[in-house]
Amino acid sequence: MLILGIDTATKVCTVSLLRDNEPVAEYEINAGMTHSEGLLPQIGQIFERTKIAKKDIDLIAISIGPGSFTGLRIGLATSEAMAYSWQIPVCGVDTMKAMAYNLPVDDIILAPVLDAQKGNYYLALYEWQNGELTEHQKVTVVSREELLTRLSEFAKPVMLLGECAKLAQESLPPLVKLAPWQVRMPKASSVALLGLEEYNNGQRKDIFELNLHYIRRSEAEELWEKRQKKV
Amino acid sequence: MLILGIDTATKVCTVSLLRDNEPVAEYEINAGMTHSEGLLPQIGQIFERTKIAKKDIDLIAISIGPGSFTGLRIGLATSEAMAYSWQIPVCGVDTMKAMAYNLPVDDIILAPVLDAQKGNYYLALYEWQNGELTEHQKVTVVSREELLTRLSEFAKPVMLLGECAKLAQESLPPLVKLAPWQVRMPKASSVALLGLEEYNNGQRKDIFELNLHYIRRSEAEELWEKRQKKV
Repeated sequence: MLILGIDTATKVCTVSLLRDNEPVAEYEINAGMTHSEGLLPQIGQIFERTKIAKKDIDLIAISIGPGSFTGLRIGLATSEAMAYSWQIPVCGVDTMKAMAYNLPVDDIILAPVLDAQKGNYYLALYEWQNGELTEHQKVTVVSREELLTRLSEFAKPVMLLGECAKLAQESLPPLVKLAPWQVRMPKASSVALLGLEEYNNGQRKDIFELNLHYIRRSEAEELWEKRQKKV
Repeated sequence: MLILGIDTATKVCTVSLLRDNEPVAEYEINAGMTHSEGLLPQIGQIFERTKIAKKDIDLIAISIGPGSFTGLRIGLATSEAMAYSWQIPVCGVDTMKAMAYNLPVDDIILAPVLDAQKGNYYLALYEWQNGELTEHQKVTVVSREELLTRLSEFAKPVMLLGECAKLAQESLPPLVKLAPWQVRMPKASSVALLGLEEYNNGQRKDIFELNLHYIRRSEAEELWEKRQKKV
């Protein structure tokens, strides 16, 4: 089974091809928000280099948030268009859960975070145990202080993933560390692996039923509502 | 500082660009041994996508073995040619040690292996402790049985990296696991990170002094010697 994985939820634009569990290609660019410009060329280049044809793809796995509004829309719109045209299924996976697949090791609390703006963070908590991922905390919005309090509750090592660079290492509780850069940000191979797993477990939605997982509304929507009230 | 990382020691052809510790690009293809065909286009594509110019690269980090004879030669020859033409330094890093950078977590024995042919494996052993990598065992050639005995000596989790797929999970000692595919094979970002570290620690050789770390001689050399003796 051939899976095309895509993640455009953050400033990293990452695509991958997976044959069953083994990555055949992975291509990530972290050079600012140019996803609309780069996503399709990146996909085209991995097809060309691996000599895999579009018609051989069996499934698209796409990271559906939380994350950047525009980034997520580019990823989902592109995935839906390809899936519709190639007549294959799309599996939407949680961006935070996919990041936990970057570090598949037991007995560490994995804490993917994303910047929720205004000093807040999206936070979820996971742990691998014997090859199974447990969710300790569904994604939630927390302040910086709430985040640090929550992480200091664990009596084992905690690793922060995602957009955690602003939380400088010095200010963290003793058992909490920032993940090193090579495993920190979203990876399309993790998205593809998780997508394959969820697809095999029966998560099969029609492409027109897939929704992005924004959690909060966009700044534009909030502003619009405020303005309406004033009128 | 901008570092170009390259690893062609196995069937994976992987290149990366690192700005200080942060990956700007990573591009890996695992589609058979077509490194001579794909390495330069892969490098060209990440330059194009990140809009980074060749002249901005400060250092090349190249994985120098052990590994595939031909793969290693393609990687080193390409790196030396680029470094000579761009007048920048090259840092050669150990392929096994670089794989340990794929899983930078404490208290797990990391056991990168590569196929040494004829039922043998190259094996090295590492462990992260507070962000520092300790080498428990320099790279050595072992039989399958010696490998399993050596790994069963540890009283903590052991994770096999690299060309370990033939060692089926069922036959392994209880604490030993095959690393999941997303972190198993060489990654050029790990090579670049290790190269940057070693370069900053003073490992600065002239490009003409860099040698590949083959460990064993090639089949061709061994055969040639046997034939000479017969004459």
